[in-house]
Amino acid sequence: MKEILVNYMKQFADLSEADLISLAENVPVGSFKKGTVLLHQGEVPDKCFFILKGCIRQYAIDVSGKETTFNFFTEEQSVTIFNQHSKDKLSNYSLSCLEDCVLVVGDLALEQDAYDQYPVLEMMTRKMMEADMGRIQDEFSSFVASTPEERFKALLEKRAELINRVPQYQLASYLGITPESLSRIKKRFDITHLK
Amino acid sequence: MKEILVNYMKQFADLSEADLISLAENVPVGSFKKGTVLLHQGEVPDKCFFILKGCIRQYAIDVSGKETTFNFFTEEQSVTIFNQHSKDKLSNYSLSCLEDCVLVVGDLALEQDAYDQYPVLEMMTRKMMEADMGRIQDEFSSFVASTPEERFKALLEKRAELINRVPQYQLASYLGITPESLSRIKKRFDITHLK
Repeated sequence: MKEILVNYMKQFADLSEADLISLAENVPVGSFKKGTVLLHQGEVPDKCFFILKGCIRQYAIDVSGKETTFNFFTEEQSVTIFNQHSKDKLSNYSLSCLEDCVLVVGDLALEQDAYDQYPVLEMMTRKMMEADMGRIQDEFSSFVASTPEERFKALLEKRAELINRVPQYQLASYLGITPESLSRIKKRFDITHLK
Repeated sequence: MKEILVNYMKQFADLSEADLISLAENVPVGSFKKGTVLLHQGEVPDKCFFILKGCIRQYAIDVSGKETTFNFFTEEQSVTIFNQHSKDKLSNYSLSCLEDCVLVVGDLALEQDAYDQYPVLEMMTRKMMEADMGRIQDEFSSFVASTPEERFKALLEKRAELINRVPQYQLASYLGITPESLSRIKKRFDITHLK
C-alpha cells in the first residue's frame, strides 16, 4: 500500500526509487476504524495525515448547532488543518473517518526535526503545499462562481465516486444545498446508473 | 517601506534584525500604476508578489463572459497563483492593481536558486504558506457556511477598510451577491458612517 505514497512523493521530489521507498518505509502508518474522530473542533491539531485508503470528512458545528461539511478527502490526498500560525491555534474543524482508513500519520511537533534530518522533505512538503494551495484556490473559486447545479456537475466530472461513498446529507452540505435540492439535482442528472 | 516586509518575515523566521534587514534589502521592489494587469487569465504565472502598499484584485471571466472577483489582497499579504503542479500550468485568474501599488516581486523561475542560496528562505516560505493555507481554509469554510449577510458582517469585522476601497460591483461579486443585494445589506447595517 505504500506504493501509493511512493508514487505521490515521486511527483514532488527528484529522488531515486530506492530513496523514495526508504523514506516511505520510515513513515508511521496507522489503521483507524470508521467513525474515529481524528481531531475535535476546539482542540490544538498535533497530527497531519496522508490517506492510503479510506475517506476523511472535515466539518464544523456553529454556535447555533448547525453542522457544515467542508471537505471529503480520499486516497492520495493529504489532510492538515493549518492553524499553527493563528492566534489561539485551536482547530475550527473536526476530522473523522467516514470509512475504515489506513493513514500516514505525521507528528506536527516533530516536523521541524524531520526537515532538519532530511532537508529534501522540506522541499517536498513545500511543493506538496503549493499543489494543495492551487487545488484549494480552484475549489474555492469554483464554489463562489457556480450554481449548486454546476457544483454537482463538476463533482460528477472530477470526483464521481464520492457521490455514492458519503452520506447524502453531508454531500448536500458540502455543495451548499439542502438534501432535498440534492435529490432533485440528482434526478435531473439521471445519475441512478451510478449506483 | 521595507519595514513592512521585515515585520512580516519576523513572524516566520528566527533571524536577527540585521539578517532580516539584509534579506529585505536584496528583494526586488517595483511600483505599478493603478490598472496594471500583473497576470492575465490563460498565461503561465512567472511572478509572485508581496504587497507593501496598494490593493490587488484576483478575478476571472467564464465562458459566458461573466466576471467573478475571488479575492482582494492588501498590505502585508502575499499573492501567488499556485498552479505550477497543474497539468497545463495556465492561470485560471487575472491579477490587477486596483490602486497604485508598491510590490515585492518574486521570480518563480529563480525560486529554487534562492532557496539553495538561502536555505532559511525555504523554511520561511513553507511557514508563510502554512499561514496562507490556514487563512484560505477558513475563508472558504466561512463562505460555504454563511449567508451573504453574515459574509458582509464578517468583512465589516475583519476587513472593513475594503468596503470603501474597492468598486462596489466587485465587492458584491466577491460576496457572491448582486450589487443591488449589497446595497440593501449595507443599508440594513447602516454603514454610511464609514464613508
